[in-house]
Amino acid sequence: MFITRKAEFSASHACWVPSLTEEQNQQVYGAASNPRGHGHNYVVEVTLAGVPDPITGMIVDLKEVKDILNRDVVGPFDHRFLNHEVSPFDRVVPTTENVAIEIWRRLEPSFRTGPARLANVRLWETDDLFVDYAGDAENAR
Amino acid sequence: MFITRKAEFSASHACWVPSLTEEQNQQVYGAASNPRGHGHNYVVEVTLAGVPDPITGMIVDLKEVKDILNRDVVGPFDHRFLNHEVSPFDRVVPTTENVAIEIWRRLEPSFRTGPARLANVRLWETDDLFVDYAGDAENAR
Amino acid sequence: MFITRKAEFSASHACWVPSLTEEQNQQVYGAASNPRGHGHNYVVEVTLAGVPDPITGMIVDLKEVKDILNRDVVGPFDHRFLNHEVSPFDRVVPTTENVAIEIWRRLEPSFRTGPARLANVRLWETDDLFVDYAGDAENAR
Amino acid sequence: MFITRKAEFSASHACWVPSLTEEQNQQVYGAASNPRGHGHNYVVEVTLAGVPDPITGMIVDLKEVKDILNRDVVGPFDHRFLNHEVSPFDRVVPTTENVAIEIWRRLEPSFRTGPARLANVRLWETDDLFVDYAGDAENAR
Amino acid sequence: MFITRKAEFSASHACWVPSLTEEQNQQVYGAASNPRGHGHNYVVEVTLAGVPDPITGMIVDLKEVKDILNRDVVGPFDHRFLNHEVSPFDRVVPTTENVAIEIWRRLEPSFRTGPARLANVRLWETDDLFVDYAGDAENAR
Amino acid sequence: MFITRKAEFSASHACWVPSLTEEQNQQVYGAASNPRGHGHNYVVEVTLAGVPDPITGMIVDLKEVKDILNRDVVGPFDHRFLNHEVSPFDRVVPTTENVAIEIWRRLEPSFRTGPARLANVRLWETDDLFVDYAGDAENAR
Repeated sequence: MFITRKAEFSASHACWVPSLTEEQNQQVYGAASNPRGHGHNYVVEVTLAGVPDPITGMIVDLKEVKDILNRDVVGPFDHRFLNHEVSPFDRVVPTTENVAIEIWRRLEPSFRTGPARLANVRLWETDDLFVDYAGDAENAR
Repeated sequence: MFITRKAEFSASHACWVPSLTEEQNQQVYGAASNPRGHGHNYVVEVTLAGVPDPITGMIVDLKEVKDILNRDVVGPFDHRFLNHEVSPFDRVVPTTENVAIEIWRRLEPSFRTGPARLANVRLWETDDLFVDYAGDAENAR
Repeated sequence: MFITRKAEFSASHACWVPSLTEEQNQQVYGAASNPRGHGHNYVVEVTLAGVPDPITGMIVDLKEVKDILNRDVVGPFDHRFLNHEVSPFDRVVPTTENVAIEIWRRLEPSFRTGPARLANVRLWETDDLFVDYAGDAENAR
Repeated sequence: MFITRKAEFSASHACWVPSLTEEQNQQVYGAASNPRGHGHNYVVEVTLAGVPDPITGMIVDLKEVKDILNRDVVGPFDHRFLNHEVSPFDRVVPTTENVAIEIWRRLEPSFRTGPARLANVRLWETDDLFVDYAGDAENAR
Repeated sequence: MFITRKAEFSASHACWVPSLTEEQNQQVYGAASNPRGHGHNYVVEVTLAGVPDPITGMIVDLKEVKDILNRDVVGPFDHRFLNHEVSPFDRVVPTTENVAIEIWRRLEPSFRTGPARLANVRLWETDDLFVDYAGDAENAR
Repeated sequence: MFITRKAEFSASHACWVPSLTEEQNQQVYGAASNPRGHGHNYVVEVTLAGVPDPITGMIVDLKEVKDILNRDVVGPFDHRFLNHEVSPFDRVVPTTENVAIEIWRRLEPSFRTGPARLANVRLWETDDLFVDYAGDAENAR
């Protein structure tokens, strides 16, 4: 069984790889390569898998989930320029894919021993675009 | 292939377990433990799996799905205080998880012999929180 | 110029007037007359009117607006059974109209002397139904 | 890892099978059988599976995805009466299921050799109804 | 004070004026001029103005509003090709503007003598486009 | 009668007034004062007032509206850091209020002589916050 909690943060990013030339960055990322950055209201959906406790009927304590999410993701990411202020985006280009992978990396350890394990991170960059990451492409970066 | 139909019902519930003390209920559920209850516009997404009929192009007759959903879920749950008026929530705490499991239990038998089987029940309690149940945690309660 | 902030609260209510008979309540309110109550995820949109400050570019300090809204509306209403726990709904039937009027009454005094005045309260009961109140029907209750 | 792009098109369709009688069409499809047609703002969600490129951090070039989607689906379907103007809906009844299968058939070849393969097509006919197709019921038609 | 109820209908239309040439229709309406028609999930928001009844706390009986809306708009418009099946769209081009005006014309007489008068009709053609009509351009057609 | 078209742009901004100290900026704007900037998916709703043309049934040519909106707002603002790349936000703090006023200033001249005049600009910064500007606070800046 799964439970999913949404959260939002407003951040800016630039899709710009330092080892590529300006022309290459422009070609790969288009307008998103503007090094000044642009921004989004990101929405993250964190999905946890588990079995409801027979007494409380809950898979997990949602207050704890919210605290972890605020401490490790919303707090550090909200109102920030990801490339300049949030590790590892000084050296990893903050595409939607890479931001989702980083959110997984930050959250997953907190759900290894508890009643629920992290099952999926969905990250919406706009209303028309989202990525899903479930840990399976872990070695891609 | 899957087809998903949404429906809504407005109900109230209290996250209150009689065998726990008031302090314990408060600790586990926070404000949701208020025994007077509070309410939600629940949204349920019922997903059926099947293969489109080669003539009609339909997995299932959606009018029948709607009738089953209204008869077994929306009718009994809508405008009700779940703990006091809908079985088994007099003895099973109506957390989002348990309400989703109960919806599955009510709907699943109607889709055992037809062209489509019940594949998932997603229940939204608010815009920020939903659970998914696909029958796999059946013995949890 | 107007600025509008949304907030949500989950509450239950019963559309039940003590001076009417059960049959009359049923006739007027239908299923909503169930005295056990049912619930909604209410969404309130608070609209303030003002002129942006020439230095700060802001009509009003939104942190203050949020504090007022939490103190006077979201805090007292959230996770409550309005008829039994929130004044004046022990004697005023909490229809969407009357809940919106009460929200106006609670908020309006805080915006009489500041840079922005309260211009409108929109209250959504469901995704399909909302009311707007701008103070003009003040004497209706 | 998955990336999903949404697109919209406005089209009309009639759920009408020529080999069935008018009574049979009415019985199977109800009001949707009106041969004059009726319409929807369809929303399609195209999900691609792949691994982010270690340099660009992207699973796929979204500009190319958009071009393919516009060329093969949005362009031909938008502002059209599907039964009369879009193949194969002159002979295949354009139920939501069959439209989703056709979208899969049109898109899948473009993603066979690139970095991302087509993983799912979700098609919303209204806000309350959607289907998912992942190629598994390919032989149904 | 205002109360607004939403409703939906799925219909198809063609923006085609018989007195114009095909080239002129194409120039004015673009792809929407396709005489085969295309479709939308229209959303109509009907706003009524009135004062809550001092006993019932309601501006108007919403069941009556729903019945009127279904009888005069949703019933006749849903699953129809407006140009061919709904008067006056055989002679009045069913642009969003004209459909909204027609909805007003059909609804307004029912609210002349009751506790609430019709204040506005908002018609959404897509998520990105809507019109508002409050009776003030009545003589435009 | 009114017609409203929505558009979106993704931009970053910093709520930072150079004539204020860092402490003052922090006090007035909180986290939004971070000079590195943060971002939003802004949604702008442009409302035009007019009377439908008796032949075409349209208040205004929406293709022209879209062209104007893209040329004067979406094009210059999308994927930009407003403070550094869009005039006058190098000297006017880009609060939601001031961005809406600037959108009005850029659009209004194009609708002075045509069939429709600009009636309102609504700008959403997040799903929970929007401002409305109708030209009435023109002298505020």
